[in-house]
Amino acid sequence: MANIGVVGLGYWGPNLLRNIISSRRSDKIVICDKDPGRLSKIAERFPTCRKTLDATDIFNDPDIDAVVIATSVSSHYPLAMAAMKTGKHVFVEKPFAEDTKKAEEMVRYAENNGLVTMVGHTFLYSPPVLKIKQILDNKELGDIRFITSNRVNLGLHQKDVSVIWDLAPHDFSMLFYWLNEEPNFVEAFGHDYVLKGIPDVAFINLGFPSGAIANVQVAWLAPSKLRKTVIVGSRKMLIYDDTEPNEKIKIFDKGVDILEPETFGEYQLSYRTGDIVSPQIDSFEPLHSEMEEFLLCIETGETPRTSGRSGMGVVKALEIADKSLSAKLNK
Amino acid sequence: MANIGVVGLGYWGPNLLRNIISSRRSDKIVICDKDPGRLSKIAERFPTCRKTLDATDIFNDPDIDAVVIATSVSSHYPLAMAAMKTGKHVFVEKPFAEDTKKAEEMVRYAENNGLVTMVGHTFLYSPPVLKIKQILDNKELGDIRFITSNRVNLGLHQKDVSVIWDLAPHDFSMLFYWLNEEPNFVEAFGHDYVLKGIPDVAFINLGFPSGAIANVQVAWLAPSKLRKTVIVGSRKMLIYDDTEPNEKIKIFDKGVDILEPETFGEYQLSYRTGDIVSPQIDSFEPLHSEMEEFLLCIETGETPRTSGRSGMGVVKALEIADKSLSAKLNK
Amino acid sequence: MANIGVVGLGYWGPNLLRNIISSRRSDKIVICDKDPGRLSKIAERFPTCRKTLDATDIFNDPDIDAVVIATSVSSHYPLAMAAMKTGKHVFVEKPFAEDTKKAEEMVRYAENNGLVTMVGHTFLYSPPVLKIKQILDNKELGDIRFITSNRVNLGLHQKDVSVIWDLAPHDFSMLFYWLNEEPNFVEAFGHDYVLKGIPDVAFINLGFPSGAIANVQVAWLAPSKLRKTVIVGSRKMLIYDDTEPNEKIKIFDKGVDILEPETFGEYQLSYRTGDIVSPQIDSFEPLHSEMEEFLLCIETGETPRTSGRSGMGVVKALEIADKSLSAKLNK
Amino acid sequence: MANIGVVGLGYWGPNLLRNIISSRRSDKIVICDKDPGRLSKIAERFPTCRKTLDATDIFNDPDIDAVVIATSVSSHYPLAMAAMKTGKHVFVEKPFAEDTKKAEEMVRYAENNGLVTMVGHTFLYSPPVLKIKQILDNKELGDIRFITSNRVNLGLHQKDVSVIWDLAPHDFSMLFYWLNEEPNFVEAFGHDYVLKGIPDVAFINLGFPSGAIANVQVAWLAPSKLRKTVIVGSRKMLIYDDTEPNEKIKIFDKGVDILEPETFGEYQLSYRTGDIVSPQIDSFEPLHSEMEEFLLCIETGETPRTSGRSGMGVVKALEIADKSLSAKLNK
Repeated sequence: MANIGVVGLGYWGPNLLRNIISSRRSDKIVICDKDPGRLSKIAERFPTCRKTLDATDIFNDPDIDAVVIATSVSSHYPLAMAAMKTGKHVFVEKPFAEDTKKAEEMVRYAENNGLVTMVGHTFLYSPPVLKIKQILDNKELGDIRFITSNRVNLGLHQKDVSVIWDLAPHDFSMLFYWLNEEPNFVEAFGHDYVLKGIPDVAFINLGFPSGAIANVQVAWLAPSKLRKTVIVGSRKMLIYDDTEPNEKIKIFDKGVDILEPETFGEYQLSYRTGDIVSPQIDSFEPLHSEMEEFLLCIETGETPRTSGRSGMGVVKALEIADKSLSAKLNK
Repeated sequence: MANIGVVGLGYWGPNLLRNIISSRRSDKIVICDKDPGRLSKIAERFPTCRKTLDATDIFNDPDIDAVVIATSVSSHYPLAMAAMKTGKHVFVEKPFAEDTKKAEEMVRYAENNGLVTMVGHTFLYSPPVLKIKQILDNKELGDIRFITSNRVNLGLHQKDVSVIWDLAPHDFSMLFYWLNEEPNFVEAFGHDYVLKGIPDVAFINLGFPSGAIANVQVAWLAPSKLRKTVIVGSRKMLIYDDTEPNEKIKIFDKGVDILEPETFGEYQLSYRTGDIVSPQIDSFEPLHSEMEEFLLCIETGETPRTSGRSGMGVVKALEIADKSLSAKLNK
Repeated sequence: MANIGVVGLGYWGPNLLRNIISSRRSDKIVICDKDPGRLSKIAERFPTCRKTLDATDIFNDPDIDAVVIATSVSSHYPLAMAAMKTGKHVFVEKPFAEDTKKAEEMVRYAENNGLVTMVGHTFLYSPPVLKIKQILDNKELGDIRFITSNRVNLGLHQKDVSVIWDLAPHDFSMLFYWLNEEPNFVEAFGHDYVLKGIPDVAFINLGFPSGAIANVQVAWLAPSKLRKTVIVGSRKMLIYDDTEPNEKIKIFDKGVDILEPETFGEYQLSYRTGDIVSPQIDSFEPLHSEMEEFLLCIETGETPRTSGRSGMGVVKALEIADKSLSAKLNK
Repeated sequence: MANIGVVGLGYWGPNLLRNIISSRRSDKIVICDKDPGRLSKIAERFPTCRKTLDATDIFNDPDIDAVVIATSVSSHYPLAMAAMKTGKHVFVEKPFAEDTKKAEEMVRYAENNGLVTMVGHTFLYSPPVLKIKQILDNKELGDIRFITSNRVNLGLHQKDVSVIWDLAPHDFSMLFYWLNEEPNFVEAFGHDYVLKGIPDVAFINLGFPSGAIANVQVAWLAPSKLRKTVIVGSRKMLIYDDTEPNEKIKIFDKGVDILEPETFGEYQLSYRTGDIVSPQIDSFEPLHSEMEEFLLCIETGETPRTSGRSGMGVVKALEIADKSLSAKLNK
């Protein structure tokens, strides 16, 4: 059992809270938002929680074991450091921090003081992403050659961060988890169409120590969502499309090698060479599994799948990508 | 009417030949391949054509008006120059030449001597590509923001050129045609998995004077073809999937702007905002239309849609992309 | 405002209850189930509701205006009649009654006594079904010629009713609503594979006074859901696939009439003749809209979209189909 | 080797002819059409064939071993009988004959006189249909429970036969081949929208001795082709969609049995229970394989896969279905 404080009750806070409550692993939960109206509204929905307008109340409460931080990115560092300095374990929404230096300090402090840090890379708790991890770990695709990923989103623009900081954390966290490594090469290209200085489309190249490479496309403002990841291995290829209801994952077997007379395949009938398999995927709520992981790691002291250290790796790559893109924009 | 010599009877030569014959715009056709076996085999299929093992016979034949060159890339330049120097118009398979310098010399010679040059960017004669051109020219999508394109191919490796020279001519020729401009920024990243020094996967970034940007992914050796181009404009988005039998083009209307509370859309029900329209596309053979264009331009002296000059633009971008990729590989 | 009793707290009861509460149109709600364990469990979830083990308590409560009945089919008639005899309006889950005679008696009693009766044909409150109704009413497809519908379900068998009574109410209610008429011809064919005497697959033919015809396929026990309705009109065709996330409805325009040389079209390239449009569909919860309709009709006295009378029409067709199938099974 | 006469040079005749020639199993080929213009046109395309306006010339030619009949349905019987009476083997386009009585006489004559009869049910030579046969014979789906098939066609109406005689031969021949049995129950329902007396849409129910049942939907005049066959077995389900380019066949595994609380699955997330596999399918031209089979059976005396007897079974079912539908239409 662990007593939890939840700081920040915008979109994610209440969702995390709901899952903490349903996990039945917490006796005492204190919620906090500096906006009184928002705080009352959420407190009404969750009448068993205590409430406060000041996060310091939570940090100073000796009953509280851990703090869940779901505030804006720039406040992750000060809130997490303050919480850790009063001995609390911390869960921080993604991205973990606004720059690598702050992320490193957070991780170092936690590791030196035996505290659990975790970052909200929720995709790493979603059934298709875990299924893919299992397929890759089993070497079903052979050696991984390249991965392409696109994430083109509906809806409106962020006003303060680039599309890289907004959307790429999803892809980066998945890629690094699947490949079990962090990139040693990152570059990006893109454009700022709507608000000058805030890139709204970006193409990011990543190279990894194993030799695998990746291309990640992120963009806002499209009229339809695209969510497609292609993983090409030496033996098979996998396509993961999160907008598909029934066949989110498809594995394409190479089958027998065939020799095409020429590469201009447009006039050839065959579009594939082997069987295609769409494995069944379990169905559970990622957020619930994520909160279970945090609460369990607090109890056992184990390192969570999405540790602060892994969150730091993502921040590092985001920072390099963002700088690479900005440098080209300003030319 | 124009009399035609066809040099090179591998995969493309006979297909071009078949369409020249069916156009009924040529009285005399001479075919040439330096491989006697191949020459006889094709001559048998097309008994009305004369044959020769030596391209010089064609160049020296005063009856011949134009030469169609469908040989390996490295012979495009010497054959085309030799043909033009005997006053022949030339059609050259893609890519137009193996480097920009040679392409420039070919174009300059042709323009100075009033000769038609054309390059075999067949896609620019295919119904869906033309439909998209019409949609873009009508400003149906608004201002073009970005284009992503992937071309992941079945089948075996080329042994002498990178995947950029093999597959990117298709995407480049389409992009430059649709946007009506050539890029002022080109960079690439990729890897050489199978044969060292021959990149088999490449991610290419392109920037254009209008502000549009593009990301082109090309790769060999996948077990299933991917052919998807996404064009995002300020008003609508278009997806072109050449592997779809019925709905090759889909246009996504933005509809009413909606405000999402947060960007982590995975838990939101809506995947789109407006109507989707898949326009009807005419059905005709691109190669036939391509040969018609060549024969017509010879008669009228007009500049073909896929002029040598446009082929030169593609070669220039290929060359820069290839060098950019090689520089990173060798690091 | 209307005070409501909810009888039957299996799967549907609590869902209806949740939407009655969220509509905020009821002051007093009494819930009832004869299973004490189930009653307590639901009462815990909805602490503002009173509870009783005996539906008679609800019928005799003069504060209660209307009763929602979500029990097994055989109890619809006695419960609804008892409720109406104490002057309550009634909502009955689908199918409205177990035979036409009982349905008629229920409707007659309600109409003679000025009571609202409504049946839970929830699909008629779902956004795509309403969109199709609007398209058909606008004569966008021309005259309706034929409709085919399949509903092949995952999961286990009912033990007491045939697949016709279980699944066909959905299709029948949609068809009759869209066409604005009830069939004058019904026949069915099918089989009882798992439990003798309980058909688990059925093909139902329907003829309508307007000349439209329909074929409805219903089945249990398949490993994947199928939900596809095809509506062919004299001018256009519409396909409604409820398992599609993004394009639930597609409208196929005939475009220009083309003449095919022969009907064996397998070797022809063209699979369609005109544009395809997938209209945007609103997003709201059908059950909520359904309960709103019931509560509103109680207040205004208007006839609900899914009136008891329309429920009776569905029951009549189900009964004839079931008998037609049984007669063939027993031969 | 066999010498062949081809009678009827409309749409199918020339296609069959082309494949007979490319099989290189015939020395002498005589072609015949009573329309002189059509005969000359085809003779020009195939200069190695002799030509005649009168089929009797072919029947009386002692060099000719077999006759391919690709004329209108009503002439199948007189031409085939005349050919057989001069000792020729016969291939007849589908449907085999215009009624069961004539079909029986043709089969009886052939069997009594040791002649090969074959019918042009081309689908039984197409790769996906053969793949399905293999899957069913291996009992991969378990026991076959039911099959549904729809065939909704583009394009124009036949003026002389119902849609049943035009399109159902495809489905019937496949069903009987896959199940290895002919139906003992056939009934149909439909309508004649465009030309009175010529049904243009039909729904056909079939029952088989094994207990399997089927529902076949055939229709003309839709703006987009539909071609979908669903085969539900006791263990797995197979979907065959001939309009799909890459995944014509999908096999749905039931996986672990799950218990759904209720059957109204619309509000459940799961649309499937197990893996989905799309097997690779060979690629060859069905017509070529069909002609090979005919020529081989002439040489060996073996019974072709699509024997006259199997064609007779299809005719019998067509006749019953057509009468069943007409009886309902005239009511």
